[in-house]
Amino acid sequence: MPLQHQVPDQTVSRSQFLCRYASTGLATSLLAMSIAAQAAIVVPENPLKAKPSTADLVKTAQPSDWRQPDPENTLYLELEKGRVVIELAPLFAPNHVENIRKLVREGYFDGLAIVRSQDNYVVQWADPDEKRELKTAKKNLDPEFTVSVPKGMTFNRLFDTDGYAPQVGFSNGFAAGRDPKTNTTWLAHCYGAVGVSRDSAVNTGDGTSLYVVIGNAPRQLDRNITVVGRVLAGMPLLSTLPRGTGALGFYEKPEQNVPMKSIRLAADVPEAERTHLDVIRTDTPLFKAIVEAQRNRGGDWYKRPAGHVDLCNVQIPVREHNK
Amino acid sequence: MPLQHQVPDQTVSRSQFLCRYASTGLATSLLAMSIAAQAAIVVPENPLKAKPSTADLVKTAQPSDWRQPDPENTLYLELEKGRVVIELAPLFAPNHVENIRKLVREGYFDGLAIVRSQDNYVVQWADPDEKRELKTAKKNLDPEFTVSVPKGMTFNRLFDTDGYAPQVGFSNGFAAGRDPKTNTTWLAHCYGAVGVSRDSAVNTGDGTSLYVVIGNAPRQLDRNITVVGRVLAGMPLLSTLPRGTGALGFYEKPEQNVPMKSIRLAADVPEAERTHLDVIRTDTPLFKAIVEAQRNRGGDWYKRPAGHVDLCNVQIPVREHNK
Repeated sequence: MPLQHQVPDQTVSRSQFLCRYASTGLATSLLAMSIAAQAAIVVPENPLKAKPSTADLVKTAQPSDWRQPDPENTLYLELEKGRVVIELAPLFAPNHVENIRKLVREGYFDGLAIVRSQDNYVVQWADPDEKRELKTAKKNLDPEFTVSVPKGMTFNRLFDTDGYAPQVGFSNGFAAGRDPKTNTTWLAHCYGAVGVSRDSAVNTGDGTSLYVVIGNAPRQLDRNITVVGRVLAGMPLLSTLPRGTGALGFYEKPEQNVPMKSIRLAADVPEAERTHLDVIRTDTPLFKAIVEAQRNRGGDWYKRPAGHVDLCNVQIPVREHNK
Repeated sequence: MPLQHQVPDQTVSRSQFLCRYASTGLATSLLAMSIAAQAAIVVPENPLKAKPSTADLVKTAQPSDWRQPDPENTLYLELEKGRVVIELAPLFAPNHVENIRKLVREGYFDGLAIVRSQDNYVVQWADPDEKRELKTAKKNLDPEFTVSVPKGMTFNRLFDTDGYAPQVGFSNGFAAGRDPKTNTTWLAHCYGAVGVSRDSAVNTGDGTSLYVVIGNAPRQLDRNITVVGRVLAGMPLLSTLPRGTGALGFYEKPEQNVPMKSIRLAADVPEAERTHLDVIRTDTPLFKAIVEAQRNRGGDWYKRPAGHVDLCNVQIPVREHNK
């Protein structure tokens, strides 16, 4: 089943700002003009050493560089305009993930709505009528803001400076923070992160209302709220929703709410209706090279490599394949 | 003239994730339930010390804490759905700002279109037909990726760790980087930053095609392209545009382009039709307190202050007033 919108590889290529219209003549005519000298500091035109971009590296990926998310950890949020695919991270929030699976299998979310869209921050869904009853799922869970580092969790550390965590890196495909003093880890609030809304008391979240980050990484939320996964595909279906004009971006009128047809576990969806995604593994030499390609970009367009990449600026490539 | 969408103060309040529906009874009933113990690490419920939020601090602002952007440095991008207000930063890009003023006054942009919307990255406008001629404006300018620190520029440094620049802080209302070794400064690519598209050669930008950041701060672009200002109001008009499905988020069909009615300088717009914005000054004790309120949030909701704030996570409050 094709996605309405695929998540593209966001990586900046050397032609990122090359206007596509340039090829029809404008660029050539611009280049041919003699330029009056201006007062600014002139950047040397010495090109950076050519080096592979993320896209180049992805082309070299072997089957072992890709992983297929477990259908038991994959949610399909079905909106009228298409499907959002979420990968859950049970190693980081085992109790919340278990509860969300129960909520999904109870049909808890079916027919609910996205009730909030705050620019440069989050969208959030909930039961607008507060009428849904829980069946097997629990109300209120103890927080999983951080967890003790579990067995089986990889950690490919990013040695770039980070202000929000003692250590950052990638664990089993997710951007994460770590504190070696307490041997704890947590998911970072990067673009597309999915978290569990809560009230002021730490145990008031249970997964009945989830939010997705649609703006600049709000890392101040890290370790203050339980993050359960991230969006792998379909982000534009959420990021382009009209912003709510109420406080905190809530929609002010019920008719502004965005209906959710359903949330299903991929495991419960017939094979033919599934979205088959491959995600680049984060514990491989290839991924290390991809991070370096994003840290120090080469080629014609960039003139000054950053020498750094923020945790949430690392793009983990995802592709859809037919099965 | 009211804005279609105002830029709200994005600051996370302690009630950020308090579902607005909670007040009608759900939260109370949830709190009254006894909670089964879970296996996660339990966060202490000790509340953080109450301290003023950004919103609290803004309420204490004196007239001298606010500034009114110069109408000669203010652009109105008029879309069918409303107005986007951009503040230009001539201290950072004097030649490009001068050229953009000329382009605006020539009517260069009127009737052009937004031709690109790439998720978690940028929107960009240009002449889709490449037919526009320049009159007084120049084609191709030498880059202003950085400038020598000019006289009259304030710098309120943020001492928080930053991976992309030797120093970061706020200059005359804008998030900026600095390198004391070269005595240069540049605008940072934060959410809402407005930059000048270019081809691979550094002098191929002139302001005829501009982009606005709509995603996680792409700081790797800093010092690689000329940034001329930032959006003060109306971001949702850009951030919610349908994403382009072509390479780099370009719209694939001409009819997908988003028409721009015009771009005007506020100085050329009759007083009664102007959008009157106040922006919090960044060189005041109040702003220092606002930054601290965003670095270490207090109150009931947050359990762990971040002890850090990224340059692009600092929200500079803006309000609209009637005149």
